[in-house]
Amino acid sequence: MVPMKFDLRFFAALCVLFVSCGVAVWSQTPAKKAEPAVFSKELREQLQSIRDGALASDYAWHQLAYLTENIGPRPAGSPSAQAAAEYVAAEMRKLGLEVHLEPAQVSHWVRGEEEAQLVEYPGQASGATQRIVLVATSGSSATQADGIIAEVVVVHSYDELTALGREKVAGKIVLYNVPYDERKALGGYAFDAYGEAVGYRTNGAKAAAQLGAVGSLIRSVGGANYRLPHTGYSVPAGIPAAALAAEDADLVEHLATQGRVRMHLVLMSQTLPLATGYNVVADLKGSEHPEQIVVVSGHLDSWDLGRGAIDDGAGVVISMEAAEVLQRLHIRPRRTLRVIAWMDEENGGGGHEAYGKAHAAEMNNHIAAIESDAGAAHPLGFAMKMSPEALASLLPVLDVLRPVGATAIRPTDRSPGSDIEPLVAAGVPGIGIIQDGRHYFDYHHTAADTLDKVDPQELRENAAAMAVMGYVLAAMPEPLPRETTK
Amino acid sequence: MVPMKFDLRFFAALCVLFVSCGVAVWSQTPAKKAEPAVFSKELREQLQSIRDGALASDYAWHQLAYLTENIGPRPAGSPSAQAAAEYVAAEMRKLGLEVHLEPAQVSHWVRGEEEAQLVEYPGQASGATQRIVLVATSGSSATQADGIIAEVVVVHSYDELTALGREKVAGKIVLYNVPYDERKALGGYAFDAYGEAVGYRTNGAKAAAQLGAVGSLIRSVGGANYRLPHTGYSVPAGIPAAALAAEDADLVEHLATQGRVRMHLVLMSQTLPLATGYNVVADLKGSEHPEQIVVVSGHLDSWDLGRGAIDDGAGVVISMEAAEVLQRLHIRPRRTLRVIAWMDEENGGGGHEAYGKAHAAEMNNHIAAIESDAGAAHPLGFAMKMSPEALASLLPVLDVLRPVGATAIRPTDRSPGSDIEPLVAAGVPGIGIIQDGRHYFDYHHTAADTLDKVDPQELRENAAAMAVMGYVLAAMPEPLPRETTK
Repeated sequence: MVPMKFDLRFFAALCVLFVSCGVAVWSQTPAKKAEPAVFSKELREQLQSIRDGALASDYAWHQLAYLTENIGPRPAGSPSAQAAAEYVAAEMRKLGLEVHLEPAQVSHWVRGEEEAQLVEYPGQASGATQRIVLVATSGSSATQADGIIAEVVVVHSYDELTALGREKVAGKIVLYNVPYDERKALGGYAFDAYGEAVGYRTNGAKAAAQLGAVGSLIRSVGGANYRLPHTGYSVPAGIPAAALAAEDADLVEHLATQGRVRMHLVLMSQTLPLATGYNVVADLKGSEHPEQIVVVSGHLDSWDLGRGAIDDGAGVVISMEAAEVLQRLHIRPRRTLRVIAWMDEENGGGGHEAYGKAHAAEMNNHIAAIESDAGAAHPLGFAMKMSPEALASLLPVLDVLRPVGATAIRPTDRSPGSDIEPLVAAGVPGIGIIQDGRHYFDYHHTAADTLDKVDPQELRENAAAMAVMGYVLAAMPEPLPRETTK
Repeated sequence: MVPMKFDLRFFAALCVLFVSCGVAVWSQTPAKKAEPAVFSKELREQLQSIRDGALASDYAWHQLAYLTENIGPRPAGSPSAQAAAEYVAAEMRKLGLEVHLEPAQVSHWVRGEEEAQLVEYPGQASGATQRIVLVATSGSSATQADGIIAEVVVVHSYDELTALGREKVAGKIVLYNVPYDERKALGGYAFDAYGEAVGYRTNGAKAAAQLGAVGSLIRSVGGANYRLPHTGYSVPAGIPAAALAAEDADLVEHLATQGRVRMHLVLMSQTLPLATGYNVVADLKGSEHPEQIVVVSGHLDSWDLGRGAIDDGAGVVISMEAAEVLQRLHIRPRRTLRVIAWMDEENGGGGHEAYGKAHAAEMNNHIAAIESDAGAAHPLGFAMKMSPEALASLLPVLDVLRPVGATAIRPTDRSPGSDIEPLVAAGVPGIGIIQDGRHYFDYHHTAADTLDKVDPQELRENAAAMAVMGYVLAAMPEPLPRETTK
């Protein structure tokens, strides 16, 4: 995912315990005096069957294995992304869903040769250079084929960059050595740790270019222990841009404090013209209100380095499982459950942008939208962008999900998933699954995002959370209320 | 290091607690009735000062930072290996030691372009390939520049390979997917886990070539979680040979169980003619018996991928510290303390081979030899190849080292370090420092063997262990007895 930073106000806000449900709810304002919601016995029993049906199934796992290993990395615009969309569509048709591939203009970025060496540094042995491990980020301009050579200046903030000024930055390569706070991540605040560092990946090259830099480097945003660089989106700034392994960022900084450091940098990635890609839209039609839509979703595209298991094959396959378990159990929802596998979440959002436009007239029929895009680890609960009344009406779900751990609610004032953002912007209640994120950013956007990073049982738990929440939204007697203030 | 597998017999053998010393001793046979050794008050006080002097020093750390970051990777035959030898020699001269660079014929292996893709596999999208992360091992033959393409057959043992036979192996690439047992490592038996898997790296290519294979791949021997391949020594077999990241070995196996998998493999490494390299031999001359020598040592060369911090810059710098702390405290040993930084431990052993030949006539004057080559984590004790009498005479050392944790003794019947093997073979008592090895093989022979993997306090503890043990051997009234049976 391209993570959103959760608003810190929520963490400082009043914690309200809904004792009747035994779940923790972080709320922006004290809860209104909503009557505790009550589900019918029939609905509760259905939800328990769906939960147990998901927990007993390896469907999601087998789908994830196919997407990550048989299809592999799925960057937008690639043949594999196309194959993945066709595969998911075919699988959904096998389940009996009505399936459409909905076109979108998506990014088409291709990594090229990339390598770097330090060619001058204090203590350098005659004839020696040192290899620097890095990967281009998506806004990188290509260097010439034989690369560039320039001195590296190290900063830790935009303030430091500004203080250096054009005189000391022009003609040089800027390295932002800003660490991802792993201890914060281990304390349960991984997305905050990410949010505090990722701005330099997104906008650092632009700021450096404005002062005349000829290249922009960051310390990789994420876990920092295995010489593993993390790629990601960056705003094109007309200069080469890359992320160094944490060890290499530190090396450059250590050496630069001792004397002049010059780097030879080759980055040959190419931004090609936009391509046509596809969102997979698969409907399990509602029995009473087929026109009313509940979205369960993840994104099908991935970065090119890994195989897109935790980001975000997992989100796609647990959405597929939500439909599969209902079909297997012959449980038909009142409203339409729409499985969406989004395209190009990572590098431009062309998929969800196209969906927002194509379905603009039907936003009032979108009852709610769920996206899972924070990995596949043990589910803890849900981030919810909706009115307090809507939120309160969903609390009984958490009792059903207690056996899988998804019992915490975190209200948020922004979209809890980037693909459902156009829906949320149109007033559709939005839900994200919150997973244990402690180690998510150890693998996020790296070559190590592979199938083995997903625990089959935790994937089942997430499938249960998605299926139960998706079904509730599609089965409640009344549709989830919209926010009254927007 | 090129680890030796500790003999399992020792683990099954009787555990004898030397209650007088409060230390655990694994012994092959029940301890003989040796009188408990007693150190003089003066010696005990000296040892305590040396221990505390090492624990208070950042000398080793600064040396390690220079070797790993200013000099960097130090493969035998490289300019950096030469620079490292000259640097250590100069540093030892600064301390007032008598220093010689002793020449040796060393390996000269240069990694070239290396890349691999799966070009055919079940489920392959039209136009797609999948990148395989691998590194050549040192016995690899080069492919032609545009590589080879061949089907991959996966085996888990030589028995499986033999069962396939020439008919199913000839013309193919063999992948030995034999896991390193991480749980065994976490249980304290990392070197056993390593020993059980590393044979396929060493000899797998030879066995595959004998059946007509055109390439030989292994699953990397070591920790398996970050798409990190581990290089190492392999016996040249006339075919390309490489180690896959664990994730890639599993991918190939998963796909090969479903259908045909073909790989495009480019490995352009070159074995150049032997080069002249140097062992650094630095003597802190003994006051009474300068002709009697106690060796404290580590190896200066490293693999090319990382920066040789845990393997084995650490062993070198704690040996340097052993001399530094004595000089700083003005403590002169009775015998000569010889610091050796060995060259080419990793890829042929040319350094220690040359030392053994050059000093063949002086073996009787080598009182003992210590090598540290198992990382820089918390020291637990010592592996000892010596007579029970010799071992018993050293037990009081362990009381001194209790504050740093080095209190366990593991008798062994082979050399506890590969560089001191020629000395041990000539009857010289040999000692290796045993470090906490649980995570050693997560980084061993990888790009991630960098300075940050060493904890400064643990490095000081190891320096204390090396300095105290080295000094005892050089200061005891009588030289350590030789084994009577050989």
